Amino acid sequence: MSVPAPARSSALERHREDALFAFCSAALAAAGADAASAEAAARAMLHGSRFGVDSHGVRLLDHYVTVIEGGRVNGHPTLDFRAGAAAVATLDAGHGHGARAAYAAMDRAMENAALYGIGAVAIRNSSHFGAAGAYALAAAEKGFIGLAFCNSDSFVRLHGGAERFHGTNPIAMGVPVKGEAPWFLDMATSAVPYNRVLLYRSLGQSLPPEVASDGDGFDTTDPHKVEMLAPLGAAFGFKGAALAGVVEVFSAVLAGARLSFDIAPMGGPDFGTPRNVGAFVMAMKPGAFLPEEEFDAAMQRYRHTLRNSRRAPGDIVMAPGDREWRVAEERRRDGIPIDPATAEAFDRLAERFGLTRPKAV
Amino acid sequence: MSVPAPARSSALERHREDALFAFCSAALAAAGADAASAEAAARAMLHGSRFGVDSHGVRLLDHYVTVIEGGRVNGHPTLDFRAGAAAVATLDAGHGHGARAAYAAMDRAMENAALYGIGAVAIRNSSHFGAAGAYALAAAEKGFIGLAFCNSDSFVRLHGGAERFHGTNPIAMGVPVKGEAPWFLDMATSAVPYNRVLLYRSLGQSLPPEVASDGDGFDTTDPHKVEMLAPLGAAFGFKGAALAGVVEVFSAVLAGARLSFDIAPMGGPDFGTPRNVGAFVMAMKPGAFLPEEEFDAAMQRYRHTLRNSRRAPGDIVMAPGDREWRVAEERRRDGIPIDPATAEAFDRLAERFGLTRPKAV
Repeated sequence: MSVPAPARSSALERHREDALFAFCSAALAAAGADAASAEAAARAMLHGSRFGVDSHGVRLLDHYVTVIEGGRVNGHPTLDFRAGAAAVATLDAGHGHGARAAYAAMDRAMENAALYGIGAVAIRNSSHFGAAGAYALAAAEKGFIGLAFCNSDSFVRLHGGAERFHGTNPIAMGVPVKGEAPWFLDMATSAVPYNRVLLYRSLGQSLPPEVASDGDGFDTTDPHKVEMLAPLGAAFGFKGAALAGVVEVFSAVLAGARLSFDIAPMGGPDFGTPRNVGAFVMAMKPGAFLPEEEFDAAMQRYRHTLRNSRRAPGDIVMAPGDREWRVAEERRRDGIPIDPATAEAFDRLAERFGLTRPKAV
Repeated sequence: MSVPAPARSSALERHREDALFAFCSAALAAAGADAASAEAAARAMLHGSRFGVDSHGVRLLDHYVTVIEGGRVNGHPTLDFRAGAAAVATLDAGHGHGARAAYAAMDRAMENAALYGIGAVAIRNSSHFGAAGAYALAAAEKGFIGLAFCNSDSFVRLHGGAERFHGTNPIAMGVPVKGEAPWFLDMATSAVPYNRVLLYRSLGQSLPPEVASDGDGFDTTDPHKVEMLAPLGAAFGFKGAALAGVVEVFSAVLAGARLSFDIAPMGGPDFGTPRNVGAFVMAMKPGAFLPEEEFDAAMQRYRHTLRNSRRAPGDIVMAPGDREWRVAEERRRDGIPIDPATAEAFDRLAERFGLTRPKAV
């Protein structure tokens, strides 16, 4: 049942969140981002680093500097909201940073939800926004149910498929729980994230079965042979592929953004051409459906009952987000670990931009 | 990769859809349902029977008669919509039939989507509504993106869990595709539906691994030992359990309905007490986000590309709904097969209510 944990990180240098935020936003500004873009991108990266989603944490700083300097991402975007009806809008993000667009879109969705009970914004002409959970959680922290989706360049096959078709197309949702940390989900619709394949490769271990395929769509457990990921569900992968489709419809079709299989690879080599990645955010106001105290009591009871429910011998039961909140608490206490490649990028960026490189705690 | 197909049904009696609809609605009316409830319940059952979801097809007629006569379901409900904001509402279904409530709720959601771009209705004091896909498809057939969720009595364990916690909590979505059959998803968030366990039991076959558990939460492939279903995802069942949670938050917490683990079993023995099952429907108007012709072109291209994408040797690739549309075409041609227990129930209900029993084609 269990999935191997990420590699031990005790030997890595560790940093305080505020120091990382200051450094990341300063480096992005130096690379050409306006204040709002630098702040949004740093905030999204720190979401990843805070909750242990290190693939979407400050590791991305170097990449974001590259794409802003290269021209793929516009550091000074004009955000253009167009509303064909009162409670929804489409945001043309002007090829700005995905986090700049998605936080602004969620702000608009929350404004609409406050007025109409629900609000949604589809985002086009955007770029990589990091972890989808950042935007869902931003809504939950303000008392709204938040949903966030995005597509990305293809890396996941269909059920029965033998080519990269969907992106890892995540589904994120945040739900406020009065007086407690929000209920909080952020999951790829692929069986595993690609960074897990890289982890197994570096560990010299075999992958679990039915999570990844070779170039002909055959399952492989050899991380070196992986050419695409499998959709969530193994033998029932038609469900994972369909969920990726849900995300694709909202993030690309409804947004007028590029379909996943039309998006240029995130990893280059072209860092100069905008990619028109899509996304979608939604907010709902619980108090528009029922008295807030009823919602609060039911949500508290639901999660409390879940956490205390009967577990299989030797196993554990957690609510969505519980693992992330635990990691956040550990990292608040011990600092955020930085992998060696990211530490080296920090050295390089500090040198280039004349910034003070954050000191390990 | 493949999942065994349902048992061959060539020896079963087959019926025309219109004859089944007439008989089902007449039997429900005779049992005490008002015209709107009888029509809605029959329509929902025929959705199941048309698309091959026979567990949620006309097989349910006998059950619905039982619960209307028993008093669990109110055959003459007053539907009470309450709106705390313009684009959303909560529907108190008055313990009526779930299909009566859900079709009415989706009509309201579509009205709101026509006005505001998006509309949502959370449903409380409802009952079993059949296949969630019926309501998502109803929206798609009118040009809206439709979503439908519901909870139900617990039968699915958590990841690592050893008790029934969530219902099979389905996610359904329909998307209009101009000039073509809608894109159409209806999936349980459990690994398999319970009727698949019953099928394997009747076939004397072993279940696939990691889809069901015994009473202690240990995986079992013996269909006779199944006490609960596993969440979708096997080793990554935390994702399936989280998706069940998404459905639970919308259908129960936000609706003010009962949580799955508080709902009395669908199968009785108490058929006299309302169960307060919850549900949630949402509709979105594509034209409120982007010009409809852009949406139509992107949706057509997305599905066309999917259907024609590269497949693994010996495998097939289908878009969500493709299997259902194929079954619907076969059944339109050959008639809808009725299992022996349902045929016997038809005999009994025709006799009791003085109705003409539908003739096999």
